[in-house]
Amino acid sequence: MMQQHKIEVCFSPAMFPFYENREAIVVVVDVLRASSAIVTAFMNGVRKIIPVGTLEEAKEYKEKGFMVAAERDGIVRDFADFGNSPFNFTPERVAGQVIVYSTTNGTNAIRLASAAYQVLIGAYLNISALAGHLLREQKDLLVLCAGWKNKFNLEDTLFAGALAEMVLRDDRFYTICDATRGSIDLYRHAKDDMMDYLEKVAQRHRLKKNKLDDVIGYCHEFDRTDRIPVLTENTLVELTKMK
Amino acid sequence: MMQQHKIEVCFSPAMFPFYENREAIVVVVDVLRASSAIVTAFMNGVRKIIPVGTLEEAKEYKEKGFMVAAERDGIVRDFADFGNSPFNFTPERVAGQVIVYSTTNGTNAIRLASAAYQVLIGAYLNISALAGHLLREQKDLLVLCAGWKNKFNLEDTLFAGALAEMVLRDDRFYTICDATRGSIDLYRHAKDDMMDYLEKVAQRHRLKKNKLDDVIGYCHEFDRTDRIPVLTENTLVELTKMK
Repeated sequence: MMQQHKIEVCFSPAMFPFYENREAIVVVVDVLRASSAIVTAFMNGVRKIIPVGTLEEAKEYKEKGFMVAAERDGIVRDFADFGNSPFNFTPERVAGQVIVYSTTNGTNAIRLASAAYQVLIGAYLNISALAGHLLREQKDLLVLCAGWKNKFNLEDTLFAGALAEMVLRDDRFYTICDATRGSIDLYRHAKDDMMDYLEKVAQRHRLKKNKLDDVIGYCHEFDRTDRIPVLTENTLVELTKMK
Repeated sequence: MMQQHKIEVCFSPAMFPFYENREAIVVVVDVLRASSAIVTAFMNGVRKIIPVGTLEEAKEYKEKGFMVAAERDGIVRDFADFGNSPFNFTPERVAGQVIVYSTTNGTNAIRLASAAYQVLIGAYLNISALAGHLLREQKDLLVLCAGWKNKFNLEDTLFAGALAEMVLRDDRFYTICDATRGSIDLYRHAKDDMMDYLEKVAQRHRLKKNKLDDVIGYCHEFDRTDRIPVLTENTLVELTKMK
């Protein structure tokens, strides 16, 4: 069978211009914690999430009466209703709602990718659903890691490796991308003792310092939901509801 | 003993602004092939190398009578004396000479780093000499991978892991940098069968296509020389001759 669809991984929004591929499905990942929180919100029935880049925009939405989740460096902003722990996005709070969302790294990455064929939000929580969708769609795949303030991070890289490995089992997909190969090797190295490996991750220690590290185990659970958030007209909706 | 000096790895010139640390010694690496060629040139007695960013600058130097090494995408430019295979930098050709040098990725990375405390050129060929110098200097270390057209590459990452691992044996050095940890893990994974691992590397296949892959083994040999190229006034000289 012909290898038709390439897989690439971009480790930082700062490198995105060099990886941009408008024919690709871009999966944006910010495992700790934005993309895990967004996937959780859809799992729990949120209707729409409006990702905004700046706190100013988030504040304007708040003043118009929207429910707003906003943080910087893991700290909830005072004008916001809550921050970006996935545990904030409970069914009681989010079911049927529209939420405006701004985080340190994740929402900017989403906006950056918006010219692609399709932009999806990825997390371990929906990884098999994502892989299934990618295999059905048969398009190029670009995993965009949100990183940490434009730096490389390990937790998003490991996720990229896990997803790329799943998709490459279909031999219509191929990769000649060093970042994809490196991600897969790091994921294979880490996966059998993921919680132990994550001790190395800088973000774990940042979260711990702010007592926000209770989510780390949850954010690395596989397949809690089949729901896939997709970007349409600058808003995230559930994929099956878009069509 | 106090951990005083941090180690970071930057995977791409495009991320350099987010890693920039003017107190650090920056080691610029482009294993296949610019940094290996530059280290070879100093091993073979070159007096100075003038790194230039653009082919236009290289051409101007050629017109002024300089010896010029210049390539793009592995192909020697017609106005140049030779390209950037390390095997071109023979003692017969380079001893006592000044050479102007422009490559696809390496020379731009050198220029980018020029505001740092010190900018060195690193390769496996001089890795122990580099590590020894870093341990004597006791400054922060930033390894800047030249990458491939601003994308991540594996061969520079593996070198960064090898160097970081050596320097971290001195417990006055520490890292909280995910890229450094990832590099070290990839290096440990690859090192026992490096030539086999390098089959994964995209640059190997680019070189092979142009019949330029004869240098891959050589570029992964450890400690062929103690000479360390250092940037001073936009020119590379041998470190012991600078002082």
